[in-house]
Amino acid sequence: MLNLVIFDFPFEGPFGAEMATAFAPLAAEIDKQPGLIWKVWTEKPGEKAAGGVYLFADAAAADDFIELHSARLESLGVKGVAINQHEVNEPLTAITNASLSRD
Amino acid sequence: MLNLVIFDFPFEGPFGAEMATAFAPLAAEIDKQPGLIWKVWTEKPGEKAAGGVYLFADAAAADDFIELHSARLESLGVKGVAINQHEVNEPLTAITNASLSRD
Repeated sequence: MLNLVIFDFPFEGPFGAEMATAFAPLAAEIDKQPGLIWKVWTEKPGEKAAGGVYLFADAAAADDFIELHSARLESLGVKGVAINQHEVNEPLTAITNASLSRD
Repeated sequence: MLNLVIFDFPFEGPFGAEMATAFAPLAAEIDKQPGLIWKVWTEKPGEKAAGGVYLFADAAAADDFIELHSARLESLGVKGVAINQHEVNEPLTAITNASLSRD
């Protein structure tokens, strides 16, 4: 069953185009994460915060990523990370046009 | 610029397949919301909570939906609604396979 994970944390920047350049290599690495269907990269420049919304193929893949990514953020000095994990209602989500698989 | 909105609220159910049946008409209506690219329907049966993650074409479309959907939830008797609105880093999001447009 699909699983959705939301990360939110304080972030000093860069944001926008500079963020895209700085984190393109990390994005390419995250894209290869086992079980990841997609990630949306979120940012709040005004509040100096950033995060991501991740859709995983199942809860086990989500759990593995949460462990890995939490350690990665900690190694980067990021503190105050909030993690929120949800089940996904797949039939309703299909009606509202979201992508539910890798292909 | 794309805008992501997250709704979370207490919800007594139904969840899962029964939720899908009960809310299929609402999903079809939400799918027609101007500026909506997609919505993921989230649920936490164990915590009696539900919500949604919405990607909009721009902040104005997101703002319009927040006003409409907040009123709809209130009319359904839902209380304790949390709303979180984010900017989206589009180049990074494209690398990680998320759908960024309606087509």
